[in-house]
Amino acid sequence: MEIVEIALEDLNPTAFIQRQVDEISAVVGDGLAINALSGGVDSSTVTVLGHKALGDRLLTYFVENGIMRQNERASVIATFEALGIPVQVLDARQQFFDALKGVTDPEEKREAITQTFYKEVFGRLVKESGARYLLQGTIYTDVEETVAGIKRQHNILSQLGIDTEATYGYTLVEPLIQLRKPAVRKVAHALGLPESIYNRPPFPGPALAARVIGEVTPERVETVRAATAIVEEELAYTGAFQYLAILHEDRVTGMRDGKRAFGQQIEVRCWESEDARTGSPTRLPFDVLERLAERITAIPGVVSVTYNIATKPPSTIEAV
Amino acid sequence: MEIVEIALEDLNPTAFIQRQVDEISAVVGDGLAINALSGGVDSSTVTVLGHKALGDRLLTYFVENGIMRQNERASVIATFEALGIPVQVLDARQQFFDALKGVTDPEEKREAITQTFYKEVFGRLVKESGARYLLQGTIYTDVEETVAGIKRQHNILSQLGIDTEATYGYTLVEPLIQLRKPAVRKVAHALGLPESIYNRPPFPGPALAARVIGEVTPERVETVRAATAIVEEELAYTGAFQYLAILHEDRVTGMRDGKRAFGQQIEVRCWESEDARTGSPTRLPFDVLERLAERITAIPGVVSVTYNIATKPPSTIEAV
Repeated sequence: MEIVEIALEDLNPTAFIQRQVDEISAVVGDGLAINALSGGVDSSTVTVLGHKALGDRLLTYFVENGIMRQNERASVIATFEALGIPVQVLDARQQFFDALKGVTDPEEKREAITQTFYKEVFGRLVKESGARYLLQGTIYTDVEETVAGIKRQHNILSQLGIDTEATYGYTLVEPLIQLRKPAVRKVAHALGLPESIYNRPPFPGPALAARVIGEVTPERVETVRAATAIVEEELAYTGAFQYLAILHEDRVTGMRDGKRAFGQQIEVRCWESEDARTGSPTRLPFDVLERLAERITAIPGVVSVTYNIATKPPSTIEAV
Repeated sequence: MEIVEIALEDLNPTAFIQRQVDEISAVVGDGLAINALSGGVDSSTVTVLGHKALGDRLLTYFVENGIMRQNERASVIATFEALGIPVQVLDARQQFFDALKGVTDPEEKREAITQTFYKEVFGRLVKESGARYLLQGTIYTDVEETVAGIKRQHNILSQLGIDTEATYGYTLVEPLIQLRKPAVRKVAHALGLPESIYNRPPFPGPALAARVIGEVTPERVETVRAATAIVEEELAYTGAFQYLAILHEDRVTGMRDGKRAFGQQIEVRCWESEDARTGSPTRLPFDVLERLAERITAIPGVVSVTYNIATKPPSTIEAV
């Protein structure tokens, strides 16, 4: 089935919300559904839509996969508690790090995360809860990039010919699949989500695993998590489309206490973009760049910090 | 023997030149000496000092090691021809690439280059020419950094306890060893070298091999050579202390013609520094940074370009 985009200017958020709520109700009937809430605008919007449609028959999980950002879990749960939507936590750290062990190729990394999410985590949740439906926040750009062969998005299954019913034992419901990011933000706003959610910069499905070049280990995730917290704190004021920290695998020469120190490098990217299809680096003041470098080189093992100056294309937003 | 620095403010270039010329004459006597001229300010200054002292009894070689910059050979030879100093070319590309094959550790890389220079290349030259002396442009900072254990400079031998007479069959003569870079530039100017030489930004002894993270192959050198030419052309106007391009080993996701392209990254560094002991990134205008990125991503295989924003320390000027 071909998916037709609903352009931002054609979107009537109220009508869209009503149609999706009706559709989720119709599909799920009086059954149970589950969904994973990461706290991003897509999964948050789906959570509220699903809750409107199904009430208690939607079971919402925060999957603690070990590759989330600092304080993510606490802030997501608090935000949705305030909205009256209960969120359960599923600790799956061991499963994810086991699946990522020794994997360095970006596509294999994405695949390892996809399999762990869809097969192990959701498969088990579905079995234990009796749910037959998985609601998720796939958007139009994910489909487009995966089909075009630019990047395999973690949440693209049916568009690649995967029958989730047969493979994993549940049916996917994707209420946002006709929207690009700005349209999702408009729907999120109309649903009454707080600005911290509807204006939240995008964050990749494979989370901090997408921010580590080379093997994803708990130690390396800890390094990039600390850098990410600094970058998000320092660059929030920019209102840029996305800003991120990447841990490189290359080691570079540095010095500590007057001695040679062979250390790690963090790359910072900050993007001006409308919809992630094209982008250019934000022209950050050097005061800000230097403060970023100073704070990031205080992370143990990091001796070098760079700032991305290439556009997309030929770069992509993320490095992995 | 402890080496005592001659500070810039204490330097009388005319007296220094006379003293070094006398000393070279005294040491070499009526024998022959050789030296390798890379075109940098240090080796150029030594070449002129040595020529003043020894005339035709100094044999000056441009060692084509395959890791020099674009047009380096032609421009060095032309410059010294204009000064009436003949330069012979020694093609040693095969020897250097053989020595660098499979070597990825920065210190091993430096060591491979050092051994190839001092043992194979100079050893052979000395044997074939009958020279017993090697003049070279070691400066005070090289000694200091090597002794402090920050970075093994390629030209430091006797300070590490290496007896070149016994090991390689020649005696080292190092007329610039008491000077830091600004003092060398003053001497070079006083010697009548052109500004393109006396104001030339420093370039590392291991040449482009120091600009490649990971294995140094002819193909990878070609990529960083093209990037270096762009960086040097675009940043000459800054008058910065040093500016360079580094080829990373990490591969990052990019896109070409609408398709995913897993490609290479070039890091640009441009340093404000007095004497390389400390440094901070030049606050380049984004117009310049973006033009650099645009030109560098036109090099085959390169999809990403970054700019260094860390200071030295904890970074160093070079990455390798």
